[in-house]
Amino acid sequence: MTDTTPMPPLRIAIAGLGTVGAGVIRLLDTNRDLVRARAGRGIEVTAVSARDRSKDRGVNHERFHWEDDMIALARRDDVDVVLELVGGSDGPALALARAALDAGKGLVTANKAMIAHHGLALAAQADKARAPLKFEAAVAGGIPVVKGLREGTSANALDKVYGILNGTCNYILSEMEQTGADFAETLREAQRLGYAEADPAFDIEGVDAAHKLSILAAIGFGARVDFANVRTTGIVAVRAADIAQADALGYVIRLIAEADVRDGALLQRVRPCLVARDHPLSSVDGPTNAVVAEGNFSGRLLFQGAGAGDGPTASAVVADLIDIARDEVGAAFSMPVDQLVDFPPAQPGDRLERTYLRFTVNDRPGVLAEITAAMRDADVSIESLIQKGRNAEGGEVLVAMVTHEGPERSIAKVLDLLEGSDSLTAAPLVLPILPN
Amino acid sequence: MTDTTPMPPLRIAIAGLGTVGAGVIRLLDTNRDLVRARAGRGIEVTAVSARDRSKDRGVNHERFHWEDDMIALARRDDVDVVLELVGGSDGPALALARAALDAGKGLVTANKAMIAHHGLALAAQADKARAPLKFEAAVAGGIPVVKGLREGTSANALDKVYGILNGTCNYILSEMEQTGADFAETLREAQRLGYAEADPAFDIEGVDAAHKLSILAAIGFGARVDFANVRTTGIVAVRAADIAQADALGYVIRLIAEADVRDGALLQRVRPCLVARDHPLSSVDGPTNAVVAEGNFSGRLLFQGAGAGDGPTASAVVADLIDIARDEVGAAFSMPVDQLVDFPPAQPGDRLERTYLRFTVNDRPGVLAEITAAMRDADVSIESLIQKGRNAEGGEVLVAMVTHEGPERSIAKVLDLLEGSDSLTAAPLVLPILPN
Repeated sequence: MTDTTPMPPLRIAIAGLGTVGAGVIRLLDTNRDLVRARAGRGIEVTAVSARDRSKDRGVNHERFHWEDDMIALARRDDVDVVLELVGGSDGPALALARAALDAGKGLVTANKAMIAHHGLALAAQADKARAPLKFEAAVAGGIPVVKGLREGTSANALDKVYGILNGTCNYILSEMEQTGADFAETLREAQRLGYAEADPAFDIEGVDAAHKLSILAAIGFGARVDFANVRTTGIVAVRAADIAQADALGYVIRLIAEADVRDGALLQRVRPCLVARDHPLSSVDGPTNAVVAEGNFSGRLLFQGAGAGDGPTASAVVADLIDIARDEVGAAFSMPVDQLVDFPPAQPGDRLERTYLRFTVNDRPGVLAEITAAMRDADVSIESLIQKGRNAEGGEVLVAMVTHEGPERSIAKVLDLLEGSDSLTAAPLVLPILPN
Repeated sequence: MTDTTPMPPLRIAIAGLGTVGAGVIRLLDTNRDLVRARAGRGIEVTAVSARDRSKDRGVNHERFHWEDDMIALARRDDVDVVLELVGGSDGPALALARAALDAGKGLVTANKAMIAHHGLALAAQADKARAPLKFEAAVAGGIPVVKGLREGTSANALDKVYGILNGTCNYILSEMEQTGADFAETLREAQRLGYAEADPAFDIEGVDAAHKLSILAAIGFGARVDFANVRTTGIVAVRAADIAQADALGYVIRLIAEADVRDGALLQRVRPCLVARDHPLSSVDGPTNAVVAEGNFSGRLLFQGAGAGDGPTASAVVADLIDIARDEVGAAFSMPVDQLVDFPPAQPGDRLERTYLRFTVNDRPGVLAEITAAMRDADVSIESLIQKGRNAEGGEVLVAMVTHEGPERSIAKVLDLLEGSDSLTAAPLVLPILPN
């Protein structure tokens, strides 16, 4: 092959010039020759759009055409692919995405909320228009896990997909582990350092991880994206004492997102879990993300790396652009939308797990008898139990235990039986133990 | 999109029906519907060839056409892609590969030796014929690391690529760690369990890892494959005592394959190294493989999983077939062969590293003074030193030390200075310490 008739460049419009948009421009500048060699042609930004034209973003965008109107940006004749970096599940991001595909442009996005809510409709539009739709950066930042499932494990029926998909929660939990500080204090510190947003709800309540999980589940299991049925528990209730107890038992606590299909039903949940120290996810610290995919032929595969940040996210975005420039593009969710299965959500009550249970109780006679009676009546068998004496500040005593393997519904029954008991000073905390 | 005009199936010929070939047939049978949905069409084996037609392989191949002659197999009209699972860098495998590309067929192979030696010529032939050439299974078994570098980190200039690429060595080293047994005994046990070949030389001398590394380096750095210049040291000289010393210092020993490009020169080496316990590669045990890629935007990415075995290897082979069925195929080494750079091999003497040095010496006065004088004369600064008393069996004493960071050539000078000393009872062992 000779280089005498070079392919025309792939022309990009960028909507949204926050840290990721600026990162993409910086990457395309820094790695220009290399991107051209790998893509087989240049990748050139032709036009950009953002809310505030004059804001300093640390990169020169005056060399690109400016559009105030993002819809006009999406329709420009000199644009092949629109990069949606606006954010938000609906509103301007969705309008832009629809307009881009409607105009027959390719669409690359880092927007997990939009893909979780509208990914199927967008993919159907892309299938119809035969236009590329790609969203590697929407899940786990710089880790190529969308490609990992779409292309890497494509020959496998997956037993399950699970991992650590939210860097903020993982930072907070691993910091609590290191420092012994409580949740609120660690969250404030994470906010100060930029690891948590000013409004951290989406992260610490598990919604962000749920968005990402619903996307991975769709690709991994050939399922229609079903964000609404992700069972989501955040990390707000995890106390320093729980982390200390877990440590004493040989575990760390991580926010685990997991999905599987059994008996024709899709289970998706995001929950803080105890992770044994010899499990590969236990050493995933700070803002790092990691995904495990267990295939029926591949066995267990682990993908790990930076889950956020402008550099890693730009790396994922431009990898998608290179795929498009190479014309190595197919169905966004690994198969056409009309072949994805609409699995009903699983009812996990029969699933067997070992569970960590923590009660905070009044320090008075009979409380332990009351709890253990509830366990007996719910047929929950205790593997180990730790009662910690009253702490310095008050009359509160902590009772923590690990159960033998049993159905989840039995744990729910324990909580029902103890509901309203005046022995308990707070709602009990239930943390499943991740199987090794 | 509708399903009314299905694409014709992708028709495969399999050459070589060992465990991997049988695994591919089993996978295509087991995951038939799923592979068809993801590939967008069926993937059908039409013809096979192997040395012995009558051998029982645990799968029924009588339903496929049989060819005694592999070249005839490669040229069949009813074949789109030839699967080369014969093995060996040259001979029948290479003849088959050439014949397949020559006939305009796609070629998928698990043959690391052939790709390390002839991958460039085959890729040039594939570029010219516009035929797909893919070899995911040639590196790290079921881990999609060829795709990880070719598609996942494609936007990045890599700082380095390194990892654990040989499951046999990793099994032996982690078993020695668990059991305290010596190398020879552990190798025999690995052979008994099927983790090591009857002739283990390729594995334990690091050649297999070097094959794989040269392939990863080509993709990761846009380099022409240069297997001949991989500096390779195997694990044969690692003793149980070294593993115990490393453990006492907070390290494990792993066979590390690493490549980087600095100052326009390509460094490729395979060496046993000390890996700190908080490095993600330290927890890679048994026959598991893992690859770390450090990109200038992505940061550090880790890919981990089963490095061998019929299931994982079949998973990688069929993932390549699905890519071809989807027509998501481009340059095998991530860019056309004529754009790969012919980097000169690096001379690593100036590279700074910390080093573990182990001497076995006669137990007599003055030996330690002789060694430390050599260290001083070579300007090597000692961070810590352990002298272990004579072991039960003989008069041999072990002196182990860790150096401060210094140029590699200084360590070579220490060895030169001590060359021929009758204080030493065996060649010293030098193990670099992998930076965290």
